[in-house]
Amino acid sequence: MPAHAFETYFPFWKDLTPEDRALLCENAIEEHFERSQPVHGNTGCSGLFMVRSGRLRIYILSEDGKEITLYRLHPGDVCMLAASCVIQSITFDVFIDAELPSDCYRISAATFGDVSERVPAVKIFALETAVERFSDVMWVMQQIVFMSMDTRLAIFLLDEARLEGSDTVTTTHEQIARHLGTAREVVSRVLKHMAADGLLKAGRGGITLLDKPALRRLAK
Amino acid sequence: MPAHAFETYFPFWKDLTPEDRALLCENAIEEHFERSQPVHGNTGCSGLFMVRSGRLRIYILSEDGKEITLYRLHPGDVCMLAASCVIQSITFDVFIDAELPSDCYRISAATFGDVSERVPAVKIFALETAVERFSDVMWVMQQIVFMSMDTRLAIFLLDEARLEGSDTVTTTHEQIARHLGTAREVVSRVLKHMAADGLLKAGRGGITLLDKPALRRLAK
Repeated sequence: MPAHAFETYFPFWKDLTPEDRALLCENAIEEHFERSQPVHGNTGCSGLFMVRSGRLRIYILSEDGKEITLYRLHPGDVCMLAASCVIQSITFDVFIDAELPSDCYRISAATFGDVSERVPAVKIFALETAVERFSDVMWVMQQIVFMSMDTRLAIFLLDEARLEGSDTVTTTHEQIARHLGTAREVVSRVLKHMAADGLLKAGRGGITLLDKPALRRLAK
Repeated sequence: MPAHAFETYFPFWKDLTPEDRALLCENAIEEHFERSQPVHGNTGCSGLFMVRSGRLRIYILSEDGKEITLYRLHPGDVCMLAASCVIQSITFDVFIDAELPSDCYRISAATFGDVSERVPAVKIFALETAVERFSDVMWVMQQIVFMSMDTRLAIFLLDEARLEGSDTVTTTHEQIARHLGTAREVVSRVLKHMAADGLLKAGRGGITLLDKPALRRLAK
């Protein structure tokens, strides 16, 4: 991997010795993931992912197959949670899938852990990246505990429309349910109410947002 | 505050200059909180709390008064989340109450932030402490999304019995509901079912756990 790519991901790049820069460059591999392909399971320590293109979804999964999305990673983002062996204080496991065809750089946990133990700025970067995700997860937690399902669905649909750059969101009720940690039946029922209120239209091609101002009011 | 107390809270103590040690000692104040007294609201930056005795509860609160407990702090613990101005990547606010009469040391965010900007080991400690709480919050998230209310209630009651050192948990249905982020009616209904199954007995003096092995099975 070319060194100049690292500068855009890592604010600590200037603090590294030439040897450590070379070590990271030599141990970064390029990986491609197809849409829906698993990037990381809950076991082991895949390392540190840097997203070059596409989108990754980070989620937790229960033994009986329930799941909820914690956050997504976009080009330029670095994912630390698949490198929990580097950060001892992370004692939970996440799953990562590619939501879109995605290109990543991956640095092995052993290499990154080695450098982060020697260079405080690297460790600080790793921890700060993890704490940023803590803030994302707290936002999800607030939605789950404090908001009704129609508010959460409105937030989700507006976010999706923004990400897709279209007022038609191409996703299934099942996928929405997995994002929001609920049952498909619940999603279908709320969407039906929203359609009856003229907020959206659900069809084969996806869900078309008809009244975004009203959805925004619902999302607060 | 005596310097020796700091050594037990701060693994970085040995890395500090005598000047920084003096700065932290001079800026640590002793505070006492009565049971149920607020320690920190969601606004501002109270600083860093070190728990000497008692117990603090960290929770989030919605505009309409719903809440859920994220975790508790015990003697020896350090709380970073009321010092979110020190850690820029924390963008959410929490509330803190004393659950028991509690003695704390508090260091102002300005003082601690000053030292943490100069000494990497201090910044690493602050971030690692925050990331540990991320793990606690993920455990709460898993309970909310993946577990039924009777499982969550069994976990809560067993934890409380352990904390109180007694099989009788002195708490109200309302308090349990606030801990678990649900309605009092839901707690009352589940407790009634559990009482009918002989798992516990709910009375004026609190909730007495009658069949802890069965509660443990329910808690998994």
